[in-house]
Amino acid sequence: MVRTSLVRQASAVHSTLHNNQATQQQNYATVPVTNSSHSSFVTGIQKSPTTETAQKKTLVLLGTGWGTTTILKNLDTRKYNVVVVSPRNYFLFTPLLPSCTVGTTEGRSIMDPIRHIVQRQGKAMQFYEAQCSDIDLATKELVLKQVPDTSAASSTTVTSNVPVRIRYDHLVVGVGGTYNTFGTPGVEQYACFLKEMGDASKIRRRLKDAIEKASFSNISEEERDRLLHVVVVGGGPTGVEFAGEVHDLVTEDLVKWVPGLSHRIKITVIEALPNLLPSFDKRLVAYTQRTFTKNGIEMRTGTRVKEVRDKTILVSSDSGESEIPYGTIVWAAGIRAREFAHTLRGKVPDVQTSGRGLIIDDYLRVKGVEDIWALGDCTVSKYAPLAQVASQQGKWLAKALNKMAADNAQADTFSRIANSVEPFNYMSNGSLAYIGGERAIAEIPLFRKNIAVGGPFASVFWKAYCLWELSSLRSSLSVATDWTKRSLFGRTMSVD
Amino acid sequence: MVRTSLVRQASAVHSTLHNNQATQQQNYATVPVTNSSHSSFVTGIQKSPTTETAQKKTLVLLGTGWGTTTILKNLDTRKYNVVVVSPRNYFLFTPLLPSCTVGTTEGRSIMDPIRHIVQRQGKAMQFYEAQCSDIDLATKELVLKQVPDTSAASSTTVTSNVPVRIRYDHLVVGVGGTYNTFGTPGVEQYACFLKEMGDASKIRRRLKDAIEKASFSNISEEERDRLLHVVVVGGGPTGVEFAGEVHDLVTEDLVKWVPGLSHRIKITVIEALPNLLPSFDKRLVAYTQRTFTKNGIEMRTGTRVKEVRDKTILVSSDSGESEIPYGTIVWAAGIRAREFAHTLRGKVPDVQTSGRGLIIDDYLRVKGVEDIWALGDCTVSKYAPLAQVASQQGKWLAKALNKMAADNAQADTFSRIANSVEPFNYMSNGSLAYIGGERAIAEIPLFRKNIAVGGPFASVFWKAYCLWELSSLRSSLSVATDWTKRSLFGRTMSVD
Repeated sequence: MVRTSLVRQASAVHSTLHNNQATQQQNYATVPVTNSSHSSFVTGIQKSPTTETAQKKTLVLLGTGWGTTTILKNLDTRKYNVVVVSPRNYFLFTPLLPSCTVGTTEGRSIMDPIRHIVQRQGKAMQFYEAQCSDIDLATKELVLKQVPDTSAASSTTVTSNVPVRIRYDHLVVGVGGTYNTFGTPGVEQYACFLKEMGDASKIRRRLKDAIEKASFSNISEEERDRLLHVVVVGGGPTGVEFAGEVHDLVTEDLVKWVPGLSHRIKITVIEALPNLLPSFDKRLVAYTQRTFTKNGIEMRTGTRVKEVRDKTILVSSDSGESEIPYGTIVWAAGIRAREFAHTLRGKVPDVQTSGRGLIIDDYLRVKGVEDIWALGDCTVSKYAPLAQVASQQGKWLAKALNKMAADNAQADTFSRIANSVEPFNYMSNGSLAYIGGERAIAEIPLFRKNIAVGGPFASVFWKAYCLWELSSLRSSLSVATDWTKRSLFGRTMSVD
Repeated sequence: MVRTSLVRQASAVHSTLHNNQATQQQNYATVPVTNSSHSSFVTGIQKSPTTETAQKKTLVLLGTGWGTTTILKNLDTRKYNVVVVSPRNYFLFTPLLPSCTVGTTEGRSIMDPIRHIVQRQGKAMQFYEAQCSDIDLATKELVLKQVPDTSAASSTTVTSNVPVRIRYDHLVVGVGGTYNTFGTPGVEQYACFLKEMGDASKIRRRLKDAIEKASFSNISEEERDRLLHVVVVGGGPTGVEFAGEVHDLVTEDLVKWVPGLSHRIKITVIEALPNLLPSFDKRLVAYTQRTFTKNGIEMRTGTRVKEVRDKTILVSSDSGESEIPYGTIVWAAGIRAREFAHTLRGKVPDVQTSGRGLIIDDYLRVKGVEDIWALGDCTVSKYAPLAQVASQQGKWLAKALNKMAADNAQADTFSRIANSVEPFNYMSNGSLAYIGGERAIAEIPLFRKNIAVGGPFASVFWKAYCLWELSSLRSSLSVATDWTKRSLFGRTMSVD
């Protein structure tokens, strides 16, 4: 059962991990996490001699988001057999996701393949495109399920429905968060979300459809206004940035291509709290609200969504309930941990008591289990669910793991980390959000003070930040090219 | 019922086309094709005074392909009320579609929005994103159906299922072709096609899925080889170019990112005729076959596909029947006219007797009907179904329509064209095809001779041709940027 089929130049050293596994687990195919199958996937710099790598521990990273990708970049992959498992084979630069919904940037520009990231750095890992559906804490095994074929009604490329098991010595859970409907009826069915690239493509298609359908004159004026009403639920950075991007699309492009319609497109942001952007400096919140008012974006703060229906949304506020017709609705109201976090919680329900995600300690260790760390949006910690937090956690954990692996590969890394390194501590690098009309807001910590800036300068700063933070030269150049094209030729709303 | 609701600065001149229509056709909403609603969609240069335009005839163009787009570019739109109806709101530069399947070029680079094309030229038209489902020759009316929402399970953006009627004085049918399965079982269900942008995206996803699934080691060697087998049915230019592009993806990119798998990816081209590229010069055919052999692309000529099954394809040749396992199958075996061509044929079945499409005369007039022209792949003429043919037909027809509209707008344009202009005559500008590995083949007519060139020089020529022929500066720059990015950073197979 132990196959090294992928390996042409396989070394003679075989895995010792699974010698007895196959017979024990008749229902599961077993993937050998050997240094040989491992090295078969990696060209370029192969830094450690083969004989040594057989002694290495297997470190499994779940996810390809901000946390795990930062681990990969900072980890000395010569010291572990690194296995990455994720349903998507790329890293997504989420700050530019709202701008992908209207074509300011193109999707592929902000999707960086995980194999490219690793190879650029001369590192080694094995990647599986799969979802982790279960975990066995006793045998230290993960159950993987292949992701369903994204393109087909047919089963052509699906190979088997037999789950695959892989073993870990160390596990890092960075599966991130997904949208949270808070149980509001109709959201799943009618709303678009804004978490993954597929969501952005869907919104782009939805906006295009609404505009094309509003071009017909066999509909009532009310129906036309409904189609052209874009509603955003959630006044956090994602919702605010999306509203700003739609405003730009309308004023910079649609005004030219559908002049008879563009002035009728209406954008509404619904927020349950009394203000937009609750986590930002008050002056910036006021600046954003002034800018939105000037740009004709309606804000309905202190308003809760009760239900999303086919063509209307039911909201309630101090002034009572009302029904708002909409053409496109984007739900950016909150996030919750992904399923696997809850699966893992279920294994130690006495300790893991938070429905919001995995409870971790100051060393990112998941409480109640061994050899499992977690970071980012699937965790409950004292920090907000920010890309920046996950990224800093990844950097911290990679360094700790590098240090622990140095001398004694067999010792208890999980406990040793807490004894020999400083606990993780988040240092904010500031907050940024684009709000439309070449304006952004920024909070930058400088000399122990938070500098708050809103306006065109902050927008330049925001752009520079994006180009700088993008994970590759390819992405930075692609986004810069997208922006140049937009300024020369405008956006396009052509969608397949 | 006659609404000019989209028009804010509507002129006082209303359509005279539909005054009695609404009451006659109770079941249909009627779209006023007025000069006023028309001008409401168009900014920029409004060349004709409003009082004159009310006298103009309504010219409806069906489709946004090579033929109709070329008409738009060459037509004097001041002389007609121009209405364009198409299920897609962009022009697609089809020669680069095969290269979109593997990310050599990005989809959006070769999709040029129809409203941009028109506005760049300071022209005027009204666009409806719709399918033409029926035609009434007696009342000169078209029945339009809105295209289904491309993004949603919900009906949010669909406004009504009531078909819309529009009237035409002149009609140009340029609905193009779609794939032809020749009744082969299983093709619809299991194969990918290569006609529209959505097809290219689907192939890209399918290839990515196959590679990721082949990375698992819980499958047999046979299953892995099956997944990594890319089969192309049809040895015409599309099939050959697709095979060449996949070869480039493997040798230039996958060899780096999945070195353990890339050498096992196999490409097979199946062609019923004894040779690939039947329409090309024999020396170029031989050159292509030599290049393919060198590149490890298997050619099964003289082989017919009997059935496509879930994971295998059943073929027959002189040596008997055999079953070939495949992971991805692309059907590029032939085209047939789209549905509307057959709907129109059905109105005059005695005259329109060809199942291949609309029979037209030398003046592109559809035989058996009045005031209807047709061009491109939905027609049966003495010319091959080539983009070049449709494009030249469009240019010819635009000029003829310009001339006929000049003096006497009320006269019988349909008959007058045959009396006063030369019949359409196709002049080949040559044939080009990219065959992979920076090689192309080209037949260029020069001094009444056909020059045949195959190799890297032809590939440069092919690239220059694409950049030159792309319909906008935006597209040309986008494609040039795509190629530069590819040469610097390689392709990416990240798909949402």
